[in-house]
Amino acid sequence: KQLIMLPGDGVGPEIMESAKVVLNTVASEYGHTFTYHQHAIGGDAIDRYETPLPEETINACKNSDAILLGAVGGSKWDSLPGHMRPEKGLLGIRKTLGLFANLRPVKGFAPLLHTSPLKEEIIKDSDILIIRELTGGLYFGKPSERRDNAVVDTLSYHRSEMERIIDKAFQSARLRNNHLTSVDKANVLESSRLWREIVNEKSKEYPDVTVEHELVDAAAMKLITQPKQFDVMVTENLFGDILSDEASVLTGSLGMLPSASIRSDGVGLYEPVHGSAPDIAGKGVVNPLGMILSVALMLRHSFQLEEEAAKIEKAVNECLEQGYHTADLHIEGGKQVGTKEMTKMVVDHIT
Amino acid sequence: KQLIMLPGDGVGPEIMESAKVVLNTVASEYGHTFTYHQHAIGGDAIDRYETPLPEETINACKNSDAILLGAVGGSKWDSLPGHMRPEKGLLGIRKTLGLFANLRPVKGFAPLLHTSPLKEEIIKDSDILIIRELTGGLYFGKPSERRDNAVVDTLSYHRSEMERIIDKAFQSARLRNNHLTSVDKANVLESSRLWREIVNEKSKEYPDVTVEHELVDAAAMKLITQPKQFDVMVTENLFGDILSDEASVLTGSLGMLPSASIRSDGVGLYEPVHGSAPDIAGKGVVNPLGMILSVALMLRHSFQLEEEAAKIEKAVNECLEQGYHTADLHIEGGKQVGTKEMTKMVVDHIT
Ligand SMILES: CC(C)[C@H](C(=O)O)[C@@H](O)C(=O)O
Ligand SMILES: CC(C)[C@H](C(=O)O)[C@@H](O)C(=O)O
Repeated sequence: KQLIMLPGDGVGPEIMESAKVVLNTVASEYGHTFTYHQHAIGGDAIDRYETPLPEETINACKNSDAILLGAVGGSKWDSLPGHMRPEKGLLGIRKTLGLFANLRPVKGFAPLLHTSPLKEEIIKDSDILIIRELTGGLYFGKPSERRDNAVVDTLSYHRSEMERIIDKAFQSARLRNNHLTSVDKANVLESSRLWREIVNEKSKEYPDVTVEHELVDAAAMKLITQPKQFDVMVTENLFGDILSDEASVLTGSLGMLPSASIRSDGVGLYEPVHGSAPDIAGKGVVNPLGMILSVALMLRHSFQLEEEAAKIEKAVNECLEQGYHTADLHIEGGKQVGTKEMTKMVVDHIT
Repeated sequence: KQLIMLPGDGVGPEIMESAKVVLNTVASEYGHTFTYHQHAIGGDAIDRYETPLPEETINACKNSDAILLGAVGGSKWDSLPGHMRPEKGLLGIRKTLGLFANLRPVKGFAPLLHTSPLKEEIIKDSDILIIRELTGGLYFGKPSERRDNAVVDTLSYHRSEMERIIDKAFQSARLRNNHLTSVDKANVLESSRLWREIVNEKSKEYPDVTVEHELVDAAAMKLITQPKQFDVMVTENLFGDILSDEASVLTGSLGMLPSASIRSDGVGLYEPVHGSAPDIAGKGVVNPLGMILSVALMLRHSFQLEEEAAKIEKAVNECLEQGYHTADLHIEGGKQVGTKEMTKMVVDHIT
């Protein structure tokens, strides 16, 4: 199994170290061999190679089975022109590899639920999987340009791009509670009307899955007022960007959330949701659990190692239950530890 | 002063009755004359005239100083083709009259704060004015069409459309706490990059207003985790649709929220945020306060009657403080009343 690591910027390198430690532990415990190579992306790549996505990184990723990404971006590179921004590296990888399905599970951890901005009775027991289309829509549509004193961006989708993500969503709902919420803006956008048609067509192939259509503005409300009503949510790229970030703060522990960006053959990129956090980079305090749980997603989705994935998730849960947490979190009567110590705790629970 | 009333669908007619009662009270208390005419829009217009926006309604609105709208829409008309949907009536009025600035104040009422889905320490003292661009972007951009097996929508803006809404936002910030958060997706969209440039240019004309740029995904998070950090927020049409609806549930009393859609000369359309709520229509239980507070916004923005507007707002506050509320709300030890009774309470506090 070929694995590429892209530590990236800010806290990226620190959490990537945690990922390695956990992977090595899983390898020796279960008798696997993971070969990994490290490459540059984002601001780090800009500094060293004057491009956010070097050829060499792309080629390595193209020949890999899975990619672990730390984080990209930081104000240091904010004033560079569009094509030289760290984010371009990430968008480039997604598009080049065709990683069209972004899976963002949002689920609280019992010992941390009290840190949610929501009242406990509202957030308790909520468990949502947001599936965002990742390689189409306004992110890549052409034209996207200035015209004299005007400007246009283009929201474009091919029917097949909608079909594959909607299929993925129905299949995911089958593995969970058989409920799918499709989010669009069909009262305004033609693309949403096609999206809704396809969801309705597909739903005939998945009669065991109940389907609900929700407008994006209503979904933004309902995530806050009734998060428990959702099981799997599927939506296009930009709506997914907004709603998945909105959802990510509901449980109060953004630092815990993993994400997967995958394609049909199982190749995928895995990264924590939290981002590069330059203000705490290098201090040894960043929460490694979002990254560690991303490793679990990788083992599950790209390597079909369900047992190993579940073991990591269980270990993380046990550490929290014992009161261990990083500085971004709080557990009453718990013990605050640094990145390395937190990683070591997880490893101890795996072995 | 020419005033058009468009009761529309669902609970629209009931809350419009409340608006009339309050307006008549203000007229007689302060010695004003408001002439109003009622016209059809939305599903009601579809049923009676086979179009969601009859010529006669448009013409009446064009010759008016202000428009009060109840609500449009309902599942009854959901299966009609796009151009025959109730929403088209609302979008048509906005565009035809050039009502480019949508003002959505989000502010909690002390007696109702406990109904917020957010913890009290997070939502307490938050007071946000969201300003949404209302006549451009993906809502009206062409092409918006199918092409074989593909589909496109177009996010388009003219520089002048951005300038006028951004100016409005700076001016509004001046009347409040001099802080403006501009929301865009400048790391992906060319339109957002132009938007950000214009905000930065304009900020030189308003040196007393501090400006912050926030990405739309980050703004969706921060509204939940730190709503107090916002004063005035300005953004383009679709981002504003999503974020203003998200924000509208934070205080826990959606039924209380008014909105204004105005243009530079003061002509405006005023409507509650809550929508047509067909399930409770005709039952005499709908909360009229969102509509009544929309009347206050109308008096302030279209008629420059600040004293009268403030009087209505004070009356609403007093009613709540005395424990009166409709079925959508709850006040510990309070008294639940119907639409007419609630309206009468407000009137009693005005006179
Ligand atoms: C960095 C940015 C371009 C990216 C996106 O908008 O997709 C990020 O917000 C994300 O969600 O992964
Ligand atoms: C009804 C719909 C077209 C409308 C919009 O999206 O603008 C509504 O959601 C609103 O916010 O007023």
